[in-house]
Amino acid sequence: MGSLTDIGVAAGINIVSALGFLLAFAVLRIQPINDRVYFPKWYLKGTRSSPRHLGSVFSKFVNADLSTYIRFLNWMPAALQMPEPELIEHAGLDSAVYVRIYLLGLKIFVPIAVLAFILLVPINWTSGTLENEKSLSYDQIDKLSISNLGKGSKRFWAHIVMAYVFTFWTFYVLYREYKVVTTMRLRFLANQNRRPDQFTVVVRNVPPDPDETVSEHVEHFFAVNHRDHYLSHQSVYNANILAGLVEKKKGLQNWLVYYENQHAKNPAKKPTMKTGLWGLWGKRVDAIEYYTTAIEELCKQEDEERQKVITDPNAIMPAAFVSFKSRWGAAVCAQTQQTSNPTLWLTEWAPEPRDVFWPNLAIPFVELSVRRLIMAVSLFFLTFFFMIPIAIVQSLANLDDIERMLPFLKPIIERNSLKSIVQGFLPGIALKIFLILLPTILMTMSKIEGHTSLSGLDRRTASKYYLFLFVNVFLGSVITGTAFQQLNNFIHQSANKIPEIVGESIPMKATFFITYVMVDGWAGVAAEVLRLKALVMFHIKNAFLVRTERDREQAMDPGSLDFGTTEPRIQLYFLLGLVYAVVTPILLPFIIVFFSLAYLVFRHQIINVYNQQYESGGQFWPDVQRRLVIALIVSQILLLGLLSTQEAEKSTVVLLPLPVLSIWFHYVCKGRFEPAFIKFPLQDAMVKDTLERANDPTLNLREYLKDAYLHPVFHKNDMYELVAIDEEEKNPLVATKRRSRMNTPVDSKFNSSSGTNEGEFNRMPPP
Amino acid sequence: MGSLTDIGVAAGINIVSALGFLLAFAVLRIQPINDRVYFPKWYLKGTRSSPRHLGSVFSKFVNADLSTYIRFLNWMPAALQMPEPELIEHAGLDSAVYVRIYLLGLKIFVPIAVLAFILLVPINWTSGTLENEKSLSYDQIDKLSISNLGKGSKRFWAHIVMAYVFTFWTFYVLYREYKVVTTMRLRFLANQNRRPDQFTVVVRNVPPDPDETVSEHVEHFFAVNHRDHYLSHQSVYNANILAGLVEKKKGLQNWLVYYENQHAKNPAKKPTMKTGLWGLWGKRVDAIEYYTTAIEELCKQEDEERQKVITDPNAIMPAAFVSFKSRWGAAVCAQTQQTSNPTLWLTEWAPEPRDVFWPNLAIPFVELSVRRLIMAVSLFFLTFFFMIPIAIVQSLANLDDIERMLPFLKPIIERNSLKSIVQGFLPGIALKIFLILLPTILMTMSKIEGHTSLSGLDRRTASKYYLFLFVNVFLGSVITGTAFQQLNNFIHQSANKIPEIVGESIPMKATFFITYVMVDGWAGVAAEVLRLKALVMFHIKNAFLVRTERDREQAMDPGSLDFGTTEPRIQLYFLLGLVYAVVTPILLPFIIVFFSLAYLVFRHQIINVYNQQYESGGQFWPDVQRRLVIALIVSQILLLGLLSTQEAEKSTVVLLPLPVLSIWFHYVCKGRFEPAFIKFPLQDAMVKDTLERANDPTLNLREYLKDAYLHPVFHKNDMYELVAIDEEEKNPLVATKRRSRMNTPVDSKFNSSSGTNEGEFNRMPPP
Repeated sequence: MGSLTDIGVAAGINIVSALGFLLAFAVLRIQPINDRVYFPKWYLKGTRSSPRHLGSVFSKFVNADLSTYIRFLNWMPAALQMPEPELIEHAGLDSAVYVRIYLLGLKIFVPIAVLAFILLVPINWTSGTLENEKSLSYDQIDKLSISNLGKGSKRFWAHIVMAYVFTFWTFYVLYREYKVVTTMRLRFLANQNRRPDQFTVVVRNVPPDPDETVSEHVEHFFAVNHRDHYLSHQSVYNANILAGLVEKKKGLQNWLVYYENQHAKNPAKKPTMKTGLWGLWGKRVDAIEYYTTAIEELCKQEDEERQKVITDPNAIMPAAFVSFKSRWGAAVCAQTQQTSNPTLWLTEWAPEPRDVFWPNLAIPFVELSVRRLIMAVSLFFLTFFFMIPIAIVQSLANLDDIERMLPFLKPIIERNSLKSIVQGFLPGIALKIFLILLPTILMTMSKIEGHTSLSGLDRRTASKYYLFLFVNVFLGSVITGTAFQQLNNFIHQSANKIPEIVGESIPMKATFFITYVMVDGWAGVAAEVLRLKALVMFHIKNAFLVRTERDREQAMDPGSLDFGTTEPRIQLYFLLGLVYAVVTPILLPFIIVFFSLAYLVFRHQIINVYNQQYESGGQFWPDVQRRLVIALIVSQILLLGLLSTQEAEKSTVVLLPLPVLSIWFHYVCKGRFEPAFIKFPLQDAMVKDTLERANDPTLNLREYLKDAYLHPVFHKNDMYELVAIDEEEKNPLVATKRRSRMNTPVDSKFNSSSGTNEGEFNRMPPP
Repeated sequence: MGSLTDIGVAAGINIVSALGFLLAFAVLRIQPINDRVYFPKWYLKGTRSSPRHLGSVFSKFVNADLSTYIRFLNWMPAALQMPEPELIEHAGLDSAVYVRIYLLGLKIFVPIAVLAFILLVPINWTSGTLENEKSLSYDQIDKLSISNLGKGSKRFWAHIVMAYVFTFWTFYVLYREYKVVTTMRLRFLANQNRRPDQFTVVVRNVPPDPDETVSEHVEHFFAVNHRDHYLSHQSVYNANILAGLVEKKKGLQNWLVYYENQHAKNPAKKPTMKTGLWGLWGKRVDAIEYYTTAIEELCKQEDEERQKVITDPNAIMPAAFVSFKSRWGAAVCAQTQQTSNPTLWLTEWAPEPRDVFWPNLAIPFVELSVRRLIMAVSLFFLTFFFMIPIAIVQSLANLDDIERMLPFLKPIIERNSLKSIVQGFLPGIALKIFLILLPTILMTMSKIEGHTSLSGLDRRTASKYYLFLFVNVFLGSVITGTAFQQLNNFIHQSANKIPEIVGESIPMKATFFITYVMVDGWAGVAAEVLRLKALVMFHIKNAFLVRTERDREQAMDPGSLDFGTTEPRIQLYFLLGLVYAVVTPILLPFIIVFFSLAYLVFRHQIINVYNQQYESGGQFWPDVQRRLVIALIVSQILLLGLLSTQEAEKSTVVLLPLPVLSIWFHYVCKGRFEPAFIKFPLQDAMVKDTLERANDPTLNLREYLKDAYLHPVFHKNDMYELVAIDEEEKNPLVATKRRSRMNTPVDSKFNSSSGTNEGEFNRMPPP
């Protein structure tokens, strides 16, 4: 346990480092050379081009206008200025709803913190049990926590009452927020322009038919069973080889453009290259000629492969995107069961075209169940056996043990300032390193589970990650110090002992979690805004690799909100806040600072930086709500356990209804709001259909939907806009334009082999 | 624990009593006077009328034909003869599927028993651990059980392997059975004649509208949102007062018919009656005149009330039955969400008209959630605190304790035969008495939960009852002897201790459960076929109350399969069988005898006796399957617990995958089959629609559906067929005719104020 001094030092370090990050950010963001790192979203929107200075070469790279330095914190109010409806239009509903999670944190914890500081802190402080028991070593911070009450104290009633107050306040805020988000989603869906996914349903597990191809089978099935509504369908091709060829051709085309640029700059000299590895060995040839031939070659190969994919019946997967004449027809098909065998002809809403995860479209039902079983078992092992290394590192971080093991280090360790630094930092960092390894593994597991949309994959990954964080960061940190093999312990403990053990160590871990909030939360958020990795990578790429305008655009890497990893981390703070609200309220201000800072930073990021890969319309909210309620229930059970060790057993019976009420609250909210995130109501579909029929009676829907769900490799073989690379550095640093001129969403990094650039492209003949 | 002798005595008693019941049944059923008790179904079908003898009055009541006594066990093969398709047509799919549960018991346990007796019993018997440890007192029966293996014996591997074999065999049988039942249900639905519920959806929580009545609102909503499919709708009235009046009028009409019969028999004498209480006091008046006036009076009152209900907007509940032009349209509406607020306009398949539970149609969403919360909490308390009296009674049944407490009883108790009888019987009977009180309470709780169909109520009651049986009969019997306050104990035990404690006492309770199977199972089933209660009640009513043919029909009381109480009891036998299959296989033959006997008896009963109130098409099967899998998992966990106390801990790790596999198996089956029990696939709907359009192009569906979902009190004010009461006793005992001549289902006791008799009736004007 750290003393108040330890916390002070850790807080100091973290505040300084956070401020350092923020200052660095404030300075770096106004340098023209970094403009594409800190404002990529505006570039993608097409409302900003590279800053140009009429002045010196120097001013192309460094901002010499001192007045801008004075206003270096301007970005903070600017981040808050954009009103929510505009934010939704600008960054999408997913992002707008996502930042509401941070706001929700403030809504829950600010009033709770105020109440706790007015009522609980004085009650704890004046109890003085710790002072009386001289045998115990205690910290100042423990005097503010529930530990300061003696066993069997009457003052516990205050905590019980506050547990009820906090719970009901949380219910109220959660219910209201769920309602607001639901309304936002419904309004968003209602206001959306015509989009292909509104008319389209993805059908999986099309059964094989001896007489018909998959495509014919799909057509006949839906023409019969949705007689008045079926419009058309799009088969799904297994186009992995083709995708590889397209990717390769794109690389060659890039080089071609590069050499053509070179030639244009210096028409006298024909650019040459070597044909060997990385252009270092081999015969020297005319570069433009070489690439032109190579591309032609590849085009032929590609055409052959394309023909093969289209004509080969084995390349057609037993899945299809089926489009309907109206949203009503699609809503009906997505929500109903098609045949008496519920494992065939599975229908669900098609994700947005850019949200589709193509490789998973053709997994049969039984294989899917087997995969999920294996992944569930793997997740269990991953969660419980990954813990062991963390525990080892953490026990190393216990300096007293190190002293005992390695006595020669004693003089170094005993120097007070160092000890504080190490004890403040090490445990948090040890955890942090482990956590970086994880999301990729979890995402792979979700992919194996067979979800068909990127948004679905993100949501599943988030669930897994939350389980992991809960067991390993939360429980692991609370328990490991006292008992090593958690799982084993838990199995051997009685059902009412588990909350007692965890609950009892909760107050003692407050210091650790305060440090964790500062290291992982404050500094983490400040680092997020600085985008150090993106900054470095951009400049490296810019210096060595950028050949064309398109290259520069790709080097930009705006990134996106990574729901799968960031949301579970926020949930951890909610969990900490709810657990410590009654026990050690001193933790709450740290969490509130985190939520405020994060809200500010992420609002700035979604406005200026991130480019979402897909738009799911806030579909993740039910998951957020569920995990919040879980956190609430965990906090209630731990409080129960804690109080029952304090010889206040009879009064704790009063706490028993809380978890029951919370579970009930969860089901009420689920029943009331969740369907809005899963189903599309027929009334809303009918309204939109009717409006559209009135506004646009001549619409040719078949033409509109024709290629929407074509596999991306068939889509476009685009050439890039041949913008001379020099042009773009002539623009000055323009003020951010808030009005977007672009309505069509940009293709995701994942699916796009092309982006939305116009150019020559071959449309695929309809299959 | 009882010795082999105890079991022998108990088995003897129970076999004798069961045989006694069966013999009594065999004799009683061929007496003409009991014909309506043992063959009511054929009367209701109209294929059988009262047996008439041309001979003496004596032969009207007693069967003097000795040859029939010789063939007194004829009913057994007869019960098995009817092939399943005919059984479905005769008794409905619910009944046919229900008896398959018993058959399923045989399919699971016969092979398991054979294997266990070949492999496990010799292994247990030859271990001889119990013989070596002289300090232990043991029974012969324990030598056949797993207790006979010493701690840490290598022979446990045989049990572990068998646990796997039994589990996979059970998986196989369960999967196959689910598949068969699903196919049966789908075929049943496909072959069904046109029925109103195929076209109808029940809508609940219609929101209030300031400008429109509920009826108008419903009409407009569906005419807009299901434009091409909406046909008509039927409002739901709150008609409780009216229902009372109708009931009262029916009583009076009954008396009128009775007196008219009297008058017809003896035209000279006008029948008279007294107007006071029960016809004992008051003025003597002409009975026919009196009742005619009274009925006229009541008719007026009824008409007024009917007008009031129809015109009063407050009497219309915010629910409606909405009918569609096609099954496809209804299937779509039932499976989709109508508006963005998922708590309004809730649609689901309408139950059959006779299956509707009218009072629950108008409960708003929030009230429903509150009701369910309260009922869940009540169920918890009911389950865990009802247990205390059982434990007291059972501890009284411990004769050694009684001897100690009341020493003067010692000489009586010590007489060996008496001791065996008491110890064999008492614990089983004590349980039995408690169980009789319960179903009504549970059904009331289900009604409060707000389910809208009788079949749904039955299913929910069964779930509750199963929980109760599991905790109180199974766990209660296993644990109570050793520890009183189960719940408290369990909370204070560690998670891995609970299976150990329960598992450890499992082998010791084998004797008790064998007795239980015999008392509750064998004798219970034998008593079921005798229908003692129905027999006595029929003769009492017949002697004192029967006035008209209709009275006699009502006195008949065919009863029905009471799914809510009988199914959980069967599940208890499955649980016992699965738990003891590995531990004490000697229990299995007793269970197999139970299943065989029950199969025979219930097949006989559904053919000859029971008259189902509703037909849900086997919708309960997912519940049956779920509880079976639960039993399987419980048996695996208990085996795990048991083995871990036998110092075979390392080998028990091998058992851990079993519960995981079972849970996975459950989800696979659920995904594969359950939708067929909840949703109606569009393809099947389309096929039936198309067929019907071809077969019956002129069908006026609106007319067909007009009054189908009218509240029963509005339906018909029927008069009864005025069959002279004497007529019916002139028919001889006819051989049961298997061919049914009736296609329309009989109204349930519950809803029908009328039955399907024809007669004068007032159609209600359309609202």
